[in-house]
Amino acid sequence: MTSDKILLDHGSGGRISHHLTADLLLPLFTNEFLSPLNDGAILDLNGDRFAFSTDTFVVDPIFFPGGDIGDLAVNGTVNDVAMCGAEPMYVSMGLILEEGFPMGNLKTILASMKKAVEQAGVLLVTGDTKVVPKGAADKIFINTSGIGAINPQVRVGSDQARAGDKIIINGSMADHGMAVMAQREGLRFDTAIKSDTAALNHLVRKILANPRAVHVLRDPTRGGVGTALNEIAMQSGAGIKLFESALPVKPEVAGICELLGFDPLYVANEGKLLAFVDSDAAEAVLAAMRNDPDGKDACIIGEVVADHPGKVYMETRIGGHRIVDMLSGEQLPRIC
Amino acid sequence: MTSDKILLDHGSGGRISHHLTADLLLPLFTNEFLSPLNDGAILDLNGDRFAFSTDTFVVDPIFFPGGDIGDLAVNGTVNDVAMCGAEPMYVSMGLILEEGFPMGNLKTILASMKKAVEQAGVLLVTGDTKVVPKGAADKIFINTSGIGAINPQVRVGSDQARAGDKIIINGSMADHGMAVMAQREGLRFDTAIKSDTAALNHLVRKILANPRAVHVLRDPTRGGVGTALNEIAMQSGAGIKLFESALPVKPEVAGICELLGFDPLYVANEGKLLAFVDSDAAEAVLAAMRNDPDGKDACIIGEVVADHPGKVYMETRIGGHRIVDMLSGEQLPRIC
Repeated sequence: MTSDKILLDHGSGGRISHHLTADLLLPLFTNEFLSPLNDGAILDLNGDRFAFSTDTFVVDPIFFPGGDIGDLAVNGTVNDVAMCGAEPMYVSMGLILEEGFPMGNLKTILASMKKAVEQAGVLLVTGDTKVVPKGAADKIFINTSGIGAINPQVRVGSDQARAGDKIIINGSMADHGMAVMAQREGLRFDTAIKSDTAALNHLVRKILANPRAVHVLRDPTRGGVGTALNEIAMQSGAGIKLFESALPVKPEVAGICELLGFDPLYVANEGKLLAFVDSDAAEAVLAAMRNDPDGKDACIIGEVVADHPGKVYMETRIGGHRIVDMLSGEQLPRIC
Repeated sequence: MTSDKILLDHGSGGRISHHLTADLLLPLFTNEFLSPLNDGAILDLNGDRFAFSTDTFVVDPIFFPGGDIGDLAVNGTVNDVAMCGAEPMYVSMGLILEEGFPMGNLKTILASMKKAVEQAGVLLVTGDTKVVPKGAADKIFINTSGIGAINPQVRVGSDQARAGDKIIINGSMADHGMAVMAQREGLRFDTAIKSDTAALNHLVRKILANPRAVHVLRDPTRGGVGTALNEIAMQSGAGIKLFESALPVKPEVAGICELLGFDPLYVANEGKLLAFVDSDAAEAVLAAMRNDPDGKDACIIGEVVADHPGKVYMETRIGGHRIVDMLSGEQLPRIC
């Protein structure tokens, strides 16, 4: 699908935004460090490896159950750096503010960013603030970029999945997307659905205790678990088998997904990661993850197989198989 | 001046935005690396010093004589890293696109970014694209962040000005601000005024050939030369004397400033730098600068004096003196 105008789909994290990156950006800026389908770049700085990542946050609404655009922006970049197998160290903050934005809201968001950098154990070291006239932006947008050092023994990447790997997720799917959606639509539920926004670097440190056993780390944000797994399958030339019965979704989240017509496999997460691990190390990694507050519900949801390279299949509850494709339209604009 | 809402002035680069940074951001995120009045942070990465900087570009219009938002975004961050005395190496790109933005315009802007990274000799290594619904942003906003290595012999900073230093600028003032303003207002002039947007890292390399002689490097963007010098005077506790007769302004730029009521001292530049240099090294630095295409019009515009610490005075053409204050209102919103 081509268009002479930018569509909401171009920002979906799914198939159309994948094409924008692969067809337009990648050919222009090709270099040895640019791997646009990873969460960040792996740089050589005076002979050491560092991860460098950037992410812009435009979530609507800016306050939602479980978080706000401030901690989301910090956690999002901390996680992108951590998914490169790095220890996040430094983050930047670029603010775009709409004229008339309440100062009190800005203070709340900055306080939330401060708490998030402290919880992640990183430092916010540089920033920039732009103000645009009323109507030229919607309230506040935040860019964060981050840098972290990579342990020389770590070699993770979306192209490193190999047959036999177990695929671990650290908890339930679709919490963030559905929390934002419910807030945006003004839906009220008896059971509050909260965003899972969290910094995952402490959990990643535990996962990487045995660095050679971990092949892929990925946070399934926009486009959800389904899209992230498709990108990994394609980049690794590997087949992925998911077990539908193992996919963790909270009952209240499943309920609202059902009600609104969303598949939790494609809904954004902001405190979840996928780890592809050697099968004989999987139990040890699971045990280590379950010792971390952000990994207590960790479980195996699938494995890498020798069949159907580049594709993701799901073994359904009733024993059938169906293909799991990339997200092909914009499910939820401005989800992060 | 306090306000319970964000004002355009908060993004001016002048006094009000200075207060936003100093009163709100700095106390929250205080750490040894955060120096919000420098153009970037100086980081320790495995024992080596690196500069890290971020900047968001919201210029209106996005195409203007001499450049567009794409090369402006690359050059702006390259320059911020270079002003830390670093060799810029890597940049990131975070795009916010408005739904409906013409694909052809995006391609033009990306091509312009590509040309800018090539001219600067840096690599664009990571990026992110968000799309917001029509009306939630104005066309396109671009964040760039950058990283560069600092030669161990270099020690520049806005707090390093010392009495006796000569203050050098590499060419004429106010070109960028007046080019954007003329384009925005639909003004037509016989003599085209062009933005000075340029990457200054090659020029900085020549300036730093004698690293110990250079104390301050600063690009006078938002708020112009007048505001940048005030920040340096305050941070260094130094007095600054400017020579009005030495301030370079192109006649056509002076004309439009006069016409529209702007003082070129406070108008944004995007290809200019201020270098504070030991007086006995100043002639050698000037000669080196004049050998660079971006420094051919380099000249001395003032000096650091022992009097009036923290303040900037100008020796006027008729031999008087007047104080040069910080920009206190928003001259030109969305100038970069």
